[in-house]
Amino acid sequence: MATVKLLSDGEVDAIPAAKAVFDDIRATRKSNFVNNFWRGLANDPASLQRVWAQVKAVMVTPSAIDPLTKEMIYIAVSTANGCSYCVHSHTAAARAKGMSDAQHGELTAIIGLAGQTNHLLTAMQIPVDPEFDVKS
Amino acid sequence: MATVKLLSDGEVDAIPAAKAVFDDIRATRKSNFVNNFWRGLANDPASLQRVWAQVKAVMVTPSAIDPLTKEMIYIAVSTANGCSYCVHSHTAAARAKGMSDAQHGELTAIIGLAGQTNHLLTAMQIPVDPEFDVKS
Amino acid sequence: MATVKLLSDGEVDAIPAAKAVFDDIRATRKSNFVNNFWRGLANDPASLQRVWAQVKAVMVTPSAIDPLTKEMIYIAVSTANGCSYCVHSHTAAARAKGMSDAQHGELTAIIGLAGQTNHLLTAMQIPVDPEFDVKS
Amino acid sequence: MATVKLLSDGEVDAIPAAKAVFDDIRATRKSNFVNNFWRGLANDPASLQRVWAQVKAVMVTPSAIDPLTKEMIYIAVSTANGCSYCVHSHTAAARAKGMSDAQHGELTAIIGLAGQTNHLLTAMQIPVDPEFDVKS
Amino acid sequence: MATVKLLSDGEVDAIPAAKAVFDDIRATRKSNFVNNFWRGLANDPASLQRVWAQVKAVMVTPSAIDPLTKEMIYIAVSTANGCSYCVHSHTAAARAKGMSDAQHGELTAIIGLAGQTNHLLTAMQIPVDPEFDVKS
Amino acid sequence: MATVKLLSDGEVDAIPAAKAVFDDIRATRKSNFVNNFWRGLANDPASLQRVWAQVKAVMVTPSAIDPLTKEMIYIAVSTANGCSYCVHSHTAAARAKGMSDAQHGELTAIIGLAGQTNHLLTAMQIPVDPEFDVKS
Repeated sequence: MATVKLLSDGEVDAIPAAKAVFDDIRATRKSNFVNNFWRGLANDPASLQRVWAQVKAVMVTPSAIDPLTKEMIYIAVSTANGCSYCVHSHTAAARAKGMSDAQHGELTAIIGLAGQTNHLLTAMQIPVDPEFDVKS
Repeated sequence: MATVKLLSDGEVDAIPAAKAVFDDIRATRKSNFVNNFWRGLANDPASLQRVWAQVKAVMVTPSAIDPLTKEMIYIAVSTANGCSYCVHSHTAAARAKGMSDAQHGELTAIIGLAGQTNHLLTAMQIPVDPEFDVKS
Repeated sequence: MATVKLLSDGEVDAIPAAKAVFDDIRATRKSNFVNNFWRGLANDPASLQRVWAQVKAVMVTPSAIDPLTKEMIYIAVSTANGCSYCVHSHTAAARAKGMSDAQHGELTAIIGLAGQTNHLLTAMQIPVDPEFDVKS
Repeated sequence: MATVKLLSDGEVDAIPAAKAVFDDIRATRKSNFVNNFWRGLANDPASLQRVWAQVKAVMVTPSAIDPLTKEMIYIAVSTANGCSYCVHSHTAAARAKGMSDAQHGELTAIIGLAGQTNHLLTAMQIPVDPEFDVKS
Repeated sequence: MATVKLLSDGEVDAIPAAKAVFDDIRATRKSNFVNNFWRGLANDPASLQRVWAQVKAVMVTPSAIDPLTKEMIYIAVSTANGCSYCVHSHTAAARAKGMSDAQHGELTAIIGLAGQTNHLLTAMQIPVDPEFDVKS
Repeated sequence: MATVKLLSDGEVDAIPAAKAVFDDIRATRKSNFVNNFWRGLANDPASLQRVWAQVKAVMVTPSAIDPLTKEMIYIAVSTANGCSYCVHSHTAAARAKGMSDAQHGELTAIIGLAGQTNHLLTAMQIPVDPEFDVKS
C-alpha cells in the first residue's frame, strides 16, 4: 500500500517528461527493469527528472569513490534512517556490484557498531576534542 | 557540558580495568592521544572494555573492507543519526587514513542523496520490488 | 501484528472513559469510522483522553494555520520519523481536506530536499550564521 | 541561540495563562527554579498548558512505574532522538531521584546496545517471529 | 567547528563554477548575504550546483504550495531530523516570509504532537487501516 | 524478505562458532527457541559472538537495574529508532518478565511524551540550563 500510484510502463509512456527519464534509466543501467521507486516518483515528472539526474551524477558517473563503496555508504545511511525499501534496493545493488557475504557481514557490523557508539556519545554528551578540528 | 565526568589520565590510572584498555588503545593506535569518548566511557570500565574490544575487532583488524571505506561508512551512519561528535571524530580518522577532499565531497554528496531518497521513499511508502529479494 | 490489542466497538463501549472519547471523535469528525490508532490507545483510557484532547485542540480547532497545511506539516514530521502508519493516515487526511496531486508531489519533493540538506549540513557540521539569531 | 525568546519571570507574570502554569510547576516541584524549556514554551500559553498537564499526569503522579525508571525511559528516548537538551535535563532529574553512577553507566550501556541491535536488525531486515505476536 | 572549510567570497571567486552559483543565489534572493551552508558546499562545486538548482526549483519557483507553507514543512522535517542549522535557517526564512508568532507557536505544537503520535504508533505497532489505501 | 538468509538449526550446526553461541543462548534462556535475529546474525559468526556476549553481559547478568526496567529502556530506544522487530521482541520479553498492561500503557505514554518534548525542544532550539551541568 503506497500513498501514490505506481505507474505502469503504459502510463509512463503517456507522460513524455517521465518517459524520457525511464528511457535514460534503462539505457544507463542496460536493463529493462525499472524498480518501483521510479514508478512512484513518475507522478511528479519534474521531481523524477531531478532525482534521476542526481543519482546518475553521484552514483553512476566514475569518480573518486568506487561503485561498490558508494552502495555500502548508501546502505549505511538508509539503515540509520530506517528506510526498508532503500536497504533492500541498495543491498541488491551492492551484491550486483560484487559485494561478498563477508563484506556484507562486515558492513552490517560497522553499521551496528556506529549505531552503538552514536548512542553512547549522545547519552554522555561528550564535547568534541579540539584535535578533531579542520585546519583551515 | 557532558552528563558524565571526562576522566583524566591520573583518574584512569587509578582504575586498573580502565587503565588496561587505555594502554591497549595507545599501543594499538601508536599514539599517546586518547580522545574524550573513551574518557567518558571510562566511568564504566566494563562498558569501556566491551566497546573498545569491538572497535578493535571491527575497525582495526585487517578484513574484507579497507580501513578508509570503514571510516566513510561510519561517517555515513553518524551523520544520519545526527551524532556531532562521531561525525567529527570519524571525519578526522578518515582524513588521517588518506581521504582526499574530492572523496570527502563525494561522500557528503552520497549521504545527502541517500537522505533525500530515503525521505522520498518513506513519504510515498513504496513497496519493495520482489526482484530485490535474497535468493536463499 | 500489534503490541497491544485493537479494541472493537463492543470492547470500547465497556470502558466508559474510552467510550466518551470515541463518541467525541465520531461527533467531531462527523463520521462513524474510528481508525486503528485510537483502538490501540483505548487500552489506556487516560492516554487516549490526553492525546485526543490535543489532536482536537491542535488539529481540529480553527486557528492561524489552515487545516490542509497542518496535515502537510504532520506528514513531513511523520516521514522524517519513519512512521508508516502516520504517513498513511495523514496523507489520507490531507487528500480529504483537498490536497491535489500537484501539492502532494511538491510536498514530497520538499520533504526529500529537506532530508538531503539536513544530511549535508550534519555531515559538514556547519555553524549557524549569527544572522539567523532571534532578536529578543 | 533559540528560535523563540526565553521569557523572564517578569514577562511570564504578564501572561496570566502562562503565570498559572509556572505557579503550578513551582508548587508541584517545590522549587522556585523553572528551566528554559518552559520559558520557551511560554510564548504559546495554550501549548505550555497542554504540555505541562501531560508531564504532571505522566511523570509526576504516582503510578505503576516508579519515578526513577520513568526518567531513565525518558533519557533513552531522548538519546535515540538526539535531543541534547532533553538528555541533559532528564539525566539531572534522574540523578536528583537517586540514580547512582552504576545505574547511569548501565543505562548508557543498554541504550548503546539497543542502538546497535536496532541497526543490525534494520540492516538485515529480519522478519518478526510469530512467537512475538500479542495473543488477543 | 566544521568538517570542511567555509569559503570566503574571495575563495569562491577563484572557483568559476562556485562563483556562478553564488552569483545566482544573490540575484535570486536579491541580497548580498550568502549563508554558511553554501560556503561549506562550495568545496564541491558540482554538489553546490546540484543542490542550489533544486532549492531554486522546489523552494523559490512559484508553485502549488505557497512559500511560507514550504518553509514550515522544511522546519518540520529539519526538526524531526534534529538538524540544528536547518531549524535556525528555515525559521529565519519563514519569519522573513511573514510567519507570525502565533503561527510559529502552532507549527511547533503540530510538530510536537506529530512527534508524540509517531512514537505512540511505533510503540504499539498498529497496522494501517485499509481505509487509508490509495485508490488506483 | 530479509537481506540475509535466516539460518536453520541444521545450517547453524554446521558452523561450530555459531553453534556454540546458539547453545549458550539456549542454555542461558533455558528455552529451545532461538529467534530470527540470531539466525540472521549467524551468517557472520564473529559478529554473532560479539553481540550475544554483550546481550548476556548487559541484559542477562544481574546488576544495578532490574530486568524488567532494562527491557522497558530497550523498548524506548527501539521505538525512537523505529525498529519494528526490536519493539516486538522486547515487548514480548518485557511481558515475559512481568510487565503488566498498566505498565505497558504508561511506558507507551512516557515514550510518546518524550517524543513530543524532544521535538518541541529541537524546534525551539532551547539552550541547556547551566543548572543541569555535571559537577565534576
